Amino acid sequence: MPSYTAPVKDMQFILHDVLKLSQSDVPGFDELDADFTGAILEEAGKIAGEVLAPLNAVGDREGCRLENGVVYTPTGFKAAFDKMREGGWTGLDCDPEYGGQGMPHVLATATGEFFTGANMAFTMYQGLTHGAYSAIHAHGTDAQKAKWLPKMVTCEWTGTMNLTEPQCGTDLGMMRTKAEPQENGTYRITGQKIFISAGEHDMSENIIHLVLAKIPGGPEGIKGVSLFIVPKFLVDDEGQIGARNGVSVGNIEEKMGIHGNATCVMNYDGAEGYLLGEEHKGMRAMFTMMNEARLGVGMQGLAVAEAAYQNALDYAKDRLQGRAITGAENKDGPADPIIVHPDIRRSLMDQKSFAEGGRAFALWGAEMIDRSHRAGDAEAEGMISLLTPVLKGFLTDEGFDMAVLAQQVYGGHGYIEEHGMSQFARDARIAMIYEGANGVQALDLVGRKLAANGGKPAMAFFEMVKTFCKENAGDAEFDTAFLEPLKTASKHLQEAAMYFMQNGMKNPNHALAGSYDFMHLFGHVCLGLMWSKMALAAKVKLAEGAPDAAFYETKIATGRYYMARRLPATSMHLARISSGADTVMALDAANF
Amino acid sequence: MPSYTAPVKDMQFILHDVLKLSQSDVPGFDELDADFTGAILEEAGKIAGEVLAPLNAVGDREGCRLENGVVYTPTGFKAAFDKMREGGWTGLDCDPEYGGQGMPHVLATATGEFFTGANMAFTMYQGLTHGAYSAIHAHGTDAQKAKWLPKMVTCEWTGTMNLTEPQCGTDLGMMRTKAEPQENGTYRITGQKIFISAGEHDMSENIIHLVLAKIPGGPEGIKGVSLFIVPKFLVDDEGQIGARNGVSVGNIEEKMGIHGNATCVMNYDGAEGYLLGEEHKGMRAMFTMMNEARLGVGMQGLAVAEAAYQNALDYAKDRLQGRAITGAENKDGPADPIIVHPDIRRSLMDQKSFAEGGRAFALWGAEMIDRSHRAGDAEAEGMISLLTPVLKGFLTDEGFDMAVLAQQVYGGHGYIEEHGMSQFARDARIAMIYEGANGVQALDLVGRKLAANGGKPAMAFFEMVKTFCKENAGDAEFDTAFLEPLKTASKHLQEAAMYFMQNGMKNPNHALAGSYDFMHLFGHVCLGLMWSKMALAAKVKLAEGAPDAAFYETKIATGRYYMARRLPATSMHLARISSGADTVMALDAANF
Repeated sequence: MPSYTAPVKDMQFILHDVLKLSQSDVPGFDELDADFTGAILEEAGKIAGEVLAPLNAVGDREGCRLENGVVYTPTGFKAAFDKMREGGWTGLDCDPEYGGQGMPHVLATATGEFFTGANMAFTMYQGLTHGAYSAIHAHGTDAQKAKWLPKMVTCEWTGTMNLTEPQCGTDLGMMRTKAEPQENGTYRITGQKIFISAGEHDMSENIIHLVLAKIPGGPEGIKGVSLFIVPKFLVDDEGQIGARNGVSVGNIEEKMGIHGNATCVMNYDGAEGYLLGEEHKGMRAMFTMMNEARLGVGMQGLAVAEAAYQNALDYAKDRLQGRAITGAENKDGPADPIIVHPDIRRSLMDQKSFAEGGRAFALWGAEMIDRSHRAGDAEAEGMISLLTPVLKGFLTDEGFDMAVLAQQVYGGHGYIEEHGMSQFARDARIAMIYEGANGVQALDLVGRKLAANGGKPAMAFFEMVKTFCKENAGDAEFDTAFLEPLKTASKHLQEAAMYFMQNGMKNPNHALAGSYDFMHLFGHVCLGLMWSKMALAAKVKLAEGAPDAAFYETKIATGRYYMARRLPATSMHLARISSGADTVMALDAANF
Repeated sequence: MPSYTAPVKDMQFILHDVLKLSQSDVPGFDELDADFTGAILEEAGKIAGEVLAPLNAVGDREGCRLENGVVYTPTGFKAAFDKMREGGWTGLDCDPEYGGQGMPHVLATATGEFFTGANMAFTMYQGLTHGAYSAIHAHGTDAQKAKWLPKMVTCEWTGTMNLTEPQCGTDLGMMRTKAEPQENGTYRITGQKIFISAGEHDMSENIIHLVLAKIPGGPEGIKGVSLFIVPKFLVDDEGQIGARNGVSVGNIEEKMGIHGNATCVMNYDGAEGYLLGEEHKGMRAMFTMMNEARLGVGMQGLAVAEAAYQNALDYAKDRLQGRAITGAENKDGPADPIIVHPDIRRSLMDQKSFAEGGRAFALWGAEMIDRSHRAGDAEAEGMISLLTPVLKGFLTDEGFDMAVLAQQVYGGHGYIEEHGMSQFARDARIAMIYEGANGVQALDLVGRKLAANGGKPAMAFFEMVKTFCKENAGDAEFDTAFLEPLKTASKHLQEAAMYFMQNGMKNPNHALAGSYDFMHLFGHVCLGLMWSKMALAAKVKLAEGAPDAAFYETKIATGRYYMARRLPATSMHLARISSGADTVMALDAANF
């Protein structure tokens, strides 16, 4: 069975040596010194490794069970959820006014990676609650916040997001669920929602559904969608749980992975709901929390990749098979551990350099969300909006690929369920799909974000890379290994953006046909930048004579790998993009 | 539930317009005119679509069941297997002396793709039998052949290959299974084998295991391995089935996919076995059929990709979501079918151009096997040996990636098991692992095949591409769209080979660290060559005024896509390869 060890030291390195959080002017960051975050990360890592990880395979094997309208989660999930509640982990970055601990989002992202890496299906229950919390926090009235949030912060009540219907996923304008206004100011919600993660389960006393629905008579399409709070059990003004509301689970889906999380068909049959935010402004309410939610999914990609990598690494050190081509390294044994083989190294280095680079990218993203929310920094807001589809799309695509690589290290033992490597791949797969399928992320990136605000955030990104390269040039070794490849990759990215500008005007297909490659190209540039920053930070630590030189030397070596071996993908993506839409759109649908 | 339509027309195009089989001088090919193969392919396609495909989801859902030493296959498998037997499909390319139909291997590869695309787990039962048949046919005595082959040709008796043990997969020198010689010339086989596909089941009256084992006192390591025939039931000299032999199934594995195929732990407890070929020459006996077996697995990659693509295409035409950015195309409907979106096109074209290009590559490989076996063509033998790891590794890696792309087209509906798209991805995953994990294929390619026979086959490959380009130059459009990219890609491949030569001498890690990228680089060049040949053939047909011009135009358009959008991967692979082993091997194992 796979094990999980929280990468506390790597996390600390990013928080303090790369992002330098406690030196930041963002309100609340001053508390985040290395001792403080170290203690929190250690504690979170312990729960992840000791409580959540052992339940990961259990959740996969048992799955969830629906009986007479009740969903039973896998053995041990409820007790573990109680532990998470007791430890206060569910409200780490929530508003103290409602019982949260008021920590920055970047810290919750760090602990969230640990919980997710240990048990993704389990951690989704609180992740979705956090998403619903954020929506109510941002758009609710004071009365709504007072009523719903305190118990959601503690996860005594969990939350869900209800968007998809059978006939509409990406295109929510086709929504059919209706919300009929009542005389008392409430609404009656009727319709069917599908793919509702944590829609029904036995781990909390109430479930607060956020439901997108149309108020009859409103505008057509997406502009007529409103957002509603629809609790499983009604709650009176004293906060006491009352009658069951008209919402029930119709079915739970059989899925490729995340079996421990109940994916529900939810039937709303005149359920009582309360408008959240303004009428017909439901999509806007959803969008305000989308950066955070999508970053969270991107983080899932790297979290599962990290977990899979840890196990692949253990296996590669243990499994004896063949001899190093340069001469036996385990002379007394019947064979060498497979980590001696260059192609196993290639695979492990792909995984390691992705997980660590992706982690830096995700934490940088979370830091920008904090900067935007806590310091009202419009530039950070623009940058994180631009990078959100990259964080989501690139990190989940790569995260899945890396889980598949990790599985491959096990050979045939990776394909059988016994060792848990198949689960990592199957679980990681969903992150490419939900919270906006990655093709939609690419569309968002190229069709919307790239040109948003007159292209300012994009220009700012290029400028930032340029400035970084200029300011840190001069060390020949660093220049060659890091800055030169980064400059080349960034140049490819600019050329691709330029191609879109020049050709997308004539025919928008020229831009959209390259959108997926652009998202990956952008992701590589971001990880190239992260690795350059990490290598720089490691150089500084080494120059300072910091203890554990091997840790910092390993960072530099891993970064060199990424720059030499992964970054060359940018030229391929640019070539694909520059070939335009002609070959992509050449066929009539009938001729496929 | 997914459907499957055998791509008969595409297959015919490759057999007759590209490979021009019936004009070949290979003995037996003269029979293969278009009418003949067309009739066979139509019939095979019918069985694939009507009999096997409907059982694919059943097999996945039910899996195999072990009860009291008996493995029960999924509902309907046995009846379908009877149909395959009755139709003579199991012995299509087997020796007529033993009841086969004596058809070339290329034709069996074509029909095999259909059966596999329709139901991979099912088709493995006969695929493994065919592998065992080939080994006995190549290495058995006349008496052995007479005794075992006729019933294996009809699949009344099925076969298995027993190589892997818990402590050894790739490194078979560590094998522990023993074969003790008896006075009557037989052997007693004792040991445990794992991951034995079709090791036990209820579809045949006997199972003929081919088992690698060591005769005590023989040479150490891989040189002391011999191959044995070990039947489940002993068979007397009249061919009558007798007592149960000392072999039994210990367990069946829970796997990520191919649930319909029983993957068994096999326990040999003094089982009676018969030496196949010479003592201690077991590996050589295995290797003679490896080209064929590995080509078969490579074909699985593209077969499943084709099946997944067909369903993704149907979904993309049916699913209404969003509007084409260039203006609504389904004005009367609530939205456009998603096939209008450029990124969905990109995905579908990736899949289509891979499946069709991969098919041409696999059939060319099968044709070379025929040429080598039937015409004793040493050049073909050298070329197919060189290309076998590429066929296996590249086609299965890409096949899996394409199944994942096809799944992605379905969005959330692809992640739930109901639509069957998850099964394609889960099934395709195994092909990257078994019959030599793809990393081992890459090692075989770069560590052995590239320099085999003084590098002659590799030189012949480059020469062939060069000659093709020279002979077909002159049409500006064809030159630009096909020959130029092909030349560039081939140049990258030569540069990579040159890098290995120049640097691998000093340090073999420089070659092996790039082996995986080299395998993919080579695969792209092969598919680039296949697409150039297909486009050329299509041009000829169009010039001849062949009916169904759209079919040939679509071939050219699909080829243009591959050349423009997929072939640029070669520069990335070359860049990775040229970065050498330093970054790959930089870390001590302890510092990972």
